[in-house]
Amino acid sequence: MKRINFCAGPAILPPSVYKQAAEAVVDYKGLGLSLLEISHRTDWFDEIIHGARGLVADMMQLNDDYDVLFLTGGASSQFALVPFNLLPTNGTACYIDTGRWSDKAVKEAKLFGNVKVVASSAKEGYKHIPKNFELGTDCTYLHLTTNNTVSGTQMHQLPEVQAPIVADMSSDIFSKPMDGKDYGLIYAGAQKNVGAAGTTLVVIRKDLLGKVQRAIPTMLDYRTHIKHLSLFNTPPVFPIYCCYLTLQWVQAQGLETIAANNKAKADLIYNEIDRNGLFTGYTALADRSLMNATFVCTNPDLESTFLQTLEEAGCIGLKGHRSMGGFRASMYNAMDIAGVQVLVDVMQEFERKLG
Amino acid sequence: MKRINFCAGPAILPPSVYKQAAEAVVDYKGLGLSLLEISHRTDWFDEIIHGARGLVADMMQLNDDYDVLFLTGGASSQFALVPFNLLPTNGTACYIDTGRWSDKAVKEAKLFGNVKVVASSAKEGYKHIPKNFELGTDCTYLHLTTNNTVSGTQMHQLPEVQAPIVADMSSDIFSKPMDGKDYGLIYAGAQKNVGAAGTTLVVIRKDLLGKVQRAIPTMLDYRTHIKHLSLFNTPPVFPIYCCYLTLQWVQAQGLETIAANNKAKADLIYNEIDRNGLFTGYTALADRSLMNATFVCTNPDLESTFLQTLEEAGCIGLKGHRSMGGFRASMYNAMDIAGVQVLVDVMQEFERKLG
Repeated sequence: MKRINFCAGPAILPPSVYKQAAEAVVDYKGLGLSLLEISHRTDWFDEIIHGARGLVADMMQLNDDYDVLFLTGGASSQFALVPFNLLPTNGTACYIDTGRWSDKAVKEAKLFGNVKVVASSAKEGYKHIPKNFELGTDCTYLHLTTNNTVSGTQMHQLPEVQAPIVADMSSDIFSKPMDGKDYGLIYAGAQKNVGAAGTTLVVIRKDLLGKVQRAIPTMLDYRTHIKHLSLFNTPPVFPIYCCYLTLQWVQAQGLETIAANNKAKADLIYNEIDRNGLFTGYTALADRSLMNATFVCTNPDLESTFLQTLEEAGCIGLKGHRSMGGFRASMYNAMDIAGVQVLVDVMQEFERKLG
Repeated sequence: MKRINFCAGPAILPPSVYKQAAEAVVDYKGLGLSLLEISHRTDWFDEIIHGARGLVADMMQLNDDYDVLFLTGGASSQFALVPFNLLPTNGTACYIDTGRWSDKAVKEAKLFGNVKVVASSAKEGYKHIPKNFELGTDCTYLHLTTNNTVSGTQMHQLPEVQAPIVADMSSDIFSKPMDGKDYGLIYAGAQKNVGAAGTTLVVIRKDLLGKVQRAIPTMLDYRTHIKHLSLFNTPPVFPIYCCYLTLQWVQAQGLETIAANNKAKADLIYNEIDRNGLFTGYTALADRSLMNATFVCTNPDLESTFLQTLEEAGCIGLKGHRSMGGFRASMYNAMDIAGVQVLVDVMQEFERKLG
C-alpha cells in the first residue's frame, strides 16, 4: 500500500529526491563509488555542498554580508548556539514565545545573558501569534519562530523592528518567496522543507559575530564554519546531498509556485475542517499555519476511531503532537494537493458514515 | 570503472550496506514510505536506533553502568563535549598527544579546566606512540586517541591507569575484539568502521556525569540524551540506519574474524612497503596502524607519477593528509584483502617499470 505521509518531520520529500538519492547510494554519478564512501575533501562533494549553499543564497537573495552553513545538531542545538555566539553576558535578547520550540529556545538563551520574553501566547494554549510588543532600546536580537508545528500557527508577517531578527524557520523555510536580508540569522532543521534529517541550515549576517567575550568551543563557533566554508570537519555527506537535491527541486518549481500550491492545499483542508461538523480547528483563523493544520474532533470520543480510519486509508502521521492530542496534517512543500484531497475525502466519508 | 577506495573517511562500507540503504531510500520494508520521510517517533525508527544501540552494547560487552548514544557533530564536537561534561573547572585532565586529532582535543579541553599533556610524540613527527608517562594523583580522566589517521600509528595496548580512560576511537573502533568496560567514555565519528557520515557514537559510563558545576546547554549535556534514549530531538535518521546495517555486518563477521582480516591486510601492505625499494614506511614499526598505512616514495620526485599510476589503476584516496604529504592506504573493516592486493600489484608494477 502506498502511504501518504502527513508527518510533522522527518517529512515527505519530492519523489525525485528519493530516486536520485537511492541511485547515489549505489553508484554516485557512475564513478564506481557509493556517495556514502565519498570523502568530503573531494571535488565531488565540493560541488554538492557549494551547490546547496549557492541555491540557498540565490533563493534568499543574499549578498556577501551573509554566509550559508550546513551544520548538525538540529534546531535544538541552535537554541544554544545563537546566544553562545551572539549574546554578550550583559546583553539582552528578546524572544517571542509562540510555542513549544520558542520556549525551549528561551530556556537555552538564559544560560548566556539576559532574556526578555516580549510576548507570549502560552496562556492561550499558543492558539495565536502575539503581535503587540516592545523591544526596548537594549535588544541584541529578537528571536522568533516563524511557524509552530505543535499548535499549528504561522507568522504571516514579519514584525518591523530595529533589532536583528533571529528566526527559527525549521518548518516553513522555502514555503514562499523570502528575502534573507530581512534577517540577522536564520536556522532550520533540514527534515521538513530542505532535505533529510541530519543537517541544519544556518544563514548568518557575519557582522553580528565577534561581539561576545566568552570563549566558544571551536565546533560551536559559527566563525569556524564560515572560515572553512562549512567543511571544517566531516559533514553529514548524505543528508547534505539530499538538501542539494531538494533545493534543486524547490528552485525548479519556483517559490511563487510553491507558495500558491501551499495556499491551495491549506485552503482545501481548512475549508473542510470549517465545513465538516465533526471537526474543529485549533488555532485563531488569522494565524493558521499553511504547513501544519491542527484540529480536533468536535466530539472527543470519536478521535481514536477517526485515527484508525485515517490509517486504513493510508494517511499516516496525523496524530497531534504528544503535548496536544487531536490531529495535525503537515503539508510541507513536497505534499501535493492530491494527497490533501485524499485526507479531505476521508473526512467527508467519515461524516457520511456517522451522519 | 570500479574504483577501490582507500580514503581515510568517509570511507568504504560493506557492499551489502549500500544495497540495503539504497532500497530503504526508495521504500523502507515495503511500507510504501522512504526511510527519509519516516519520523523518529515511530516504531519503525525505534527498531533501528535501539537495534544499533544494542549491537554496540553487545559487541563491547557493556553492562548497565554504560549507555550508548548516537549524537551528531563528529569527534570534533566531542573534543569539547567531553570536558564540558566531565572536567570540573578546578579539575585536571590528562591527555596523550599522538597526533593532529589529540592536539585538537587538548585545545578544546583547555577552555574548561586544567589540562596536562602527559606524553607527546609531536617533536618526532608523531611517528610513534609514547608509552611512558605519569598521570599524577589528581587526574579526572586520561584522554587518548587509539588510532591516528594522519601519521598512521595505532595504540596496540591500552595503558594501565587508575583514571577513567576517554578514548577517541573514530578510526579503529570495532576493528578487533574489545571490552568497553575498560573505558570511561568512548567516542567515534561513524564514517569509518561504524557507518555513514552524520552521526557520532558515544559510549559512556554514567557515573562519570553530574560532577561538574557549570551550566551545560541541553543539547550538549550527555544526560539529556541518556534520559531520552538518544531520541531527545530529531536524530540523523539515515546515517543511524547505515550504522545499524554496518553493525549487523560487523556482528555477522565477528570481531575475531575482522581482526584477523585486518591483520592480514596490514601485513600485505607493510611487507610490500618494506620489500619495495621505491617506498619507505613513515612510522615506527611497533606502532604501525592496521587501519592507515602511511609511506613515502624513497625518491620524492616519483610521488606525483605514482599517484597518477594509482588513479589509473582505480585506486583512489591514497594521497597523504594535507599536513603530511606522501601516501596513506586506509583499510577499514569493509576493505577486503583483494583490494589491498590490487594496491600491492600496482606498487610492484611501478617497481618493474622503473627497474
